[in-house]
Amino acid sequence: MAISLGMIAVQHGCELHGDPDVEIYHLATLDAAGDGALTFLANRAYLPQLKATRAAAVILKPEDVDTCPVAALVADDPYAVYAHVARMLYPESQVVPGTDARAVIGDGCSVPASCHLAAGAVIENGAILGERVYVGPHVVVGENVRIGADSRLLAGVIICHDVRIGERCLIHPAAVIGSDGFGNARDAQGVWTKVPQIGTVILGNDVEIGANTTIDRGAIGDTTIGDGVHLDNLIQVGHNVRIGEHTAIAALTGIAGSVRIGARCMIGGQAGISGHLEITDDVVLTAGSMVHRSLSRPGAYGGAASYAVEIGKWRRNIARYGQLDEMSRRLRTVEKKIKNMTGKSDKNE
Amino acid sequence: MAISLGMIAVQHGCELHGDPDVEIYHLATLDAAGDGALTFLANRAYLPQLKATRAAAVILKPEDVDTCPVAALVADDPYAVYAHVARMLYPESQVVPGTDARAVIGDGCSVPASCHLAAGAVIENGAILGERVYVGPHVVVGENVRIGADSRLLAGVIICHDVRIGERCLIHPAAVIGSDGFGNARDAQGVWTKVPQIGTVILGNDVEIGANTTIDRGAIGDTTIGDGVHLDNLIQVGHNVRIGEHTAIAALTGIAGSVRIGARCMIGGQAGISGHLEITDDVVLTAGSMVHRSLSRPGAYGGAASYAVEIGKWRRNIARYGQLDEMSRRLRTVEKKIKNMTGKSDKNE
Amino acid sequence: MAISLGMIAVQHGCELHGDPDVEIYHLATLDAAGDGALTFLANRAYLPQLKATRAAAVILKPEDVDTCPVAALVADDPYAVYAHVARMLYPESQVVPGTDARAVIGDGCSVPASCHLAAGAVIENGAILGERVYVGPHVVVGENVRIGADSRLLAGVIICHDVRIGERCLIHPAAVIGSDGFGNARDAQGVWTKVPQIGTVILGNDVEIGANTTIDRGAIGDTTIGDGVHLDNLIQVGHNVRIGEHTAIAALTGIAGSVRIGARCMIGGQAGISGHLEITDDVVLTAGSMVHRSLSRPGAYGGAASYAVEIGKWRRNIARYGQLDEMSRRLRTVEKKIKNMTGKSDKNE
Repeated sequence: MAISLGMIAVQHGCELHGDPDVEIYHLATLDAAGDGALTFLANRAYLPQLKATRAAAVILKPEDVDTCPVAALVADDPYAVYAHVARMLYPESQVVPGTDARAVIGDGCSVPASCHLAAGAVIENGAILGERVYVGPHVVVGENVRIGADSRLLAGVIICHDVRIGERCLIHPAAVIGSDGFGNARDAQGVWTKVPQIGTVILGNDVEIGANTTIDRGAIGDTTIGDGVHLDNLIQVGHNVRIGEHTAIAALTGIAGSVRIGARCMIGGQAGISGHLEITDDVVLTAGSMVHRSLSRPGAYGGAASYAVEIGKWRRNIARYGQLDEMSRRLRTVEKKIKNMTGKSDKNE
Repeated sequence: MAISLGMIAVQHGCELHGDPDVEIYHLATLDAAGDGALTFLANRAYLPQLKATRAAAVILKPEDVDTCPVAALVADDPYAVYAHVARMLYPESQVVPGTDARAVIGDGCSVPASCHLAAGAVIENGAILGERVYVGPHVVVGENVRIGADSRLLAGVIICHDVRIGERCLIHPAAVIGSDGFGNARDAQGVWTKVPQIGTVILGNDVEIGANTTIDRGAIGDTTIGDGVHLDNLIQVGHNVRIGEHTAIAALTGIAGSVRIGARCMIGGQAGISGHLEITDDVVLTAGSMVHRSLSRPGAYGGAASYAVEIGKWRRNIARYGQLDEMSRRLRTVEKKIKNMTGKSDKNE
Repeated sequence: MAISLGMIAVQHGCELHGDPDVEIYHLATLDAAGDGALTFLANRAYLPQLKATRAAAVILKPEDVDTCPVAALVADDPYAVYAHVARMLYPESQVVPGTDARAVIGDGCSVPASCHLAAGAVIENGAILGERVYVGPHVVVGENVRIGADSRLLAGVIICHDVRIGERCLIHPAAVIGSDGFGNARDAQGVWTKVPQIGTVILGNDVEIGANTTIDRGAIGDTTIGDGVHLDNLIQVGHNVRIGEHTAIAALTGIAGSVRIGARCMIGGQAGISGHLEITDDVVLTAGSMVHRSLSRPGAYGGAASYAVEIGKWRRNIARYGQLDEMSRRLRTVEKKIKNMTGKSDKNE
């Protein structure tokens, strides 16, 4: 697979500084790229590496074009152009139809001939797969699960009974979708009674779920993940959570039960959202934020170690946090001075 | 399966406002419930939905009965009554005895005929299972493991060698029980020597372990989880931890090695407890708490971003945290005023 | 297996207080140890248990020898000596050569006869294994993966395509190595385009990876883990991260993309490191630290709920954090006093 610089420029509306006939064969980092390699600059921390690059061409912003020692494709959003070129040069592998002899298909299942079932894939009774679904090694698809066309379940994924997955979803290794929610009622002696979790999980289309992430089924009613949502690895999504379309969430984040998150939110890693809260559309949360109240206005928030506050306030607060001991000492000094002054004042009167 | 409102009222000691002969067939949320559906109100945030519900009946507290537009079952703890009714309407499925042809049983194992072994279940040498144990697809039961009667290991669970599991335990998908503890000794050059982890893990009866949770085996001596403990998803339990009976812990919490947690504790999600600490019985920890000292008195604690302090103090502190920058500015102002006053005072003298 | 106290003393350069001919058969904790058992004291919190121990002998520091009621092996680093004796008494089990009939080996693989492949092991096309590699039940080794001699992949481990693993590595159950990095480009409407993750993961020699830990493959270029690195359970390592040799990281830590961590670092549990940062060699991070800036000087840092600051400053700050509400009240008092004084002052003038 190869593509010329001229073709890239035309397809993505980039201004080209360089020879349009140069062919690109692969992608590389700024410092590793050589002949035939395309790279990009989106984060100016890597500017020193731009100056030394030996790439065939670099996708970059207008302000960096003069710094570029090689051919340049100028774009307002270099990373987006890079993403599209990358998808062209490294297309997803086609699903090879076929069922391994060591796959297991239960009763009443529908598995089109266009699907791939790898060794150890287990499809339990009543599951219905769309066309060209990829089921990797040791994947378990529970009873009555439905999976839309062109979805891919990589090695070790576990889909529990009755879960519904849309089209073109990508589920990374060992993710668990549809495990029981954490629902227990406590008696006066502190002994727990497990509450049956009778809802399920519904994933929209074009959803990506990271490795070892867990999504719990609803207690009553369903846990729902909107179209185009991307979840990273090791995330916990509690029962009855609803995540709006095109929201992205980074690794190790925990979302407690019945939380509603709007569309197009971006949530950093290791964030935590307490139960029953509502996060509106277009909210950005910094990594490590701990959210203890609903956020009803779009915008960026951070709140490590606190309820979330507006992002500017949060930035100033964490700066002050680093000065807490100094502030305490200054306060002590001020108190002493006042005591002295009041003492004097008392004497004076 | 159906049950009349009158029967529910009698069995659970609820006062019934409505027709005792109405039959309940299923459960639903306040807003989704219709004919034949029972629902409940435990969190008053959902009061608006109570007013509009079309459920057959609602389980609720005495103070909400007048707001209820349909039949009401009055209980002091609606969620507990709901839990019991739910278990009646949605009983756990019976274990179907039998061993799939693609399950693997090693030498010297004991697997009663009442057990179910799904496709890909692997029972290694010397493992002993009680009656009616369910072993899901691709579950691995290590050498010499013992599992008590009526326990269920769902898809992909891994139980390492010599682990002992009590009766009626429920282990959710892909949990790992008995992995090596993180024990390494460091030499003067910073090179690590792995310390053999020669203990094991012992789970009591009626224990629930969440999806993708990991419980490490003891270094010497055992990691022990008491009767009736409930652990959520993606929790790390370090080596030699001891958790007392009926304690519940929410997702993504990390418990470092040799921690002892008492009975009936409730620990929020993403909490962290440092090594070798002791948490006494009946402690409640808020989500995100980071505990750096032992807690020897029962009560509720929170301490995101800090050592844990008493809950009231913590609530006030996190409120102040959100005002840190403002406090710093006020302190600066106070310092300037004092300087001015001292200056004046100096001049005056 | 048994070893005499005299032999231990000679091999590890310990001073022996006691009979050199006493034989040690096993290891135990201070309180559980009896005849034939060796134990150790490294943490003085357990001093009360030393006084009551019935062990055959205790490895301990010079300052504790007089407190010891039984034979003592005196060492500057008791835990290190314990580690080496433990490895002698509890040697790693030898890999038993052989391939289970239910293992699957793809085309073009190289699997030496000295390897062990358990039931359900899946070796995909083109994978190359070194001598004596252990592949546990339901492990998936992806296409073109290379694994060095004497490495062990325990039950349920998933190694994605093209990953390279060194010699003598130990991968604990259900770890996922080589999952796609979390790379998505966003358009003006907030819709994400997945960026192909075309790099891989390279593990050095003697690396240990914990249960359910996930290590993402590079976006372009590789994620690299140095020789002798030890990672605990449930850790997220983002794409293109580089971890230097002999670094150890505790559970539930999240490392964002393109972070570089130096050699011999020690990182506590639930720590978080933001993307593109550099942590130099010999850095120690406390549990729960959230790192928002590069750390270019060796040393110990803590920074729960904040950017990381020097460890002493952090300790003082978290103490002040617990006094925040009190500080706020004191500040309010000071402000009132000043107002009063200024008022008086105004009147006086």
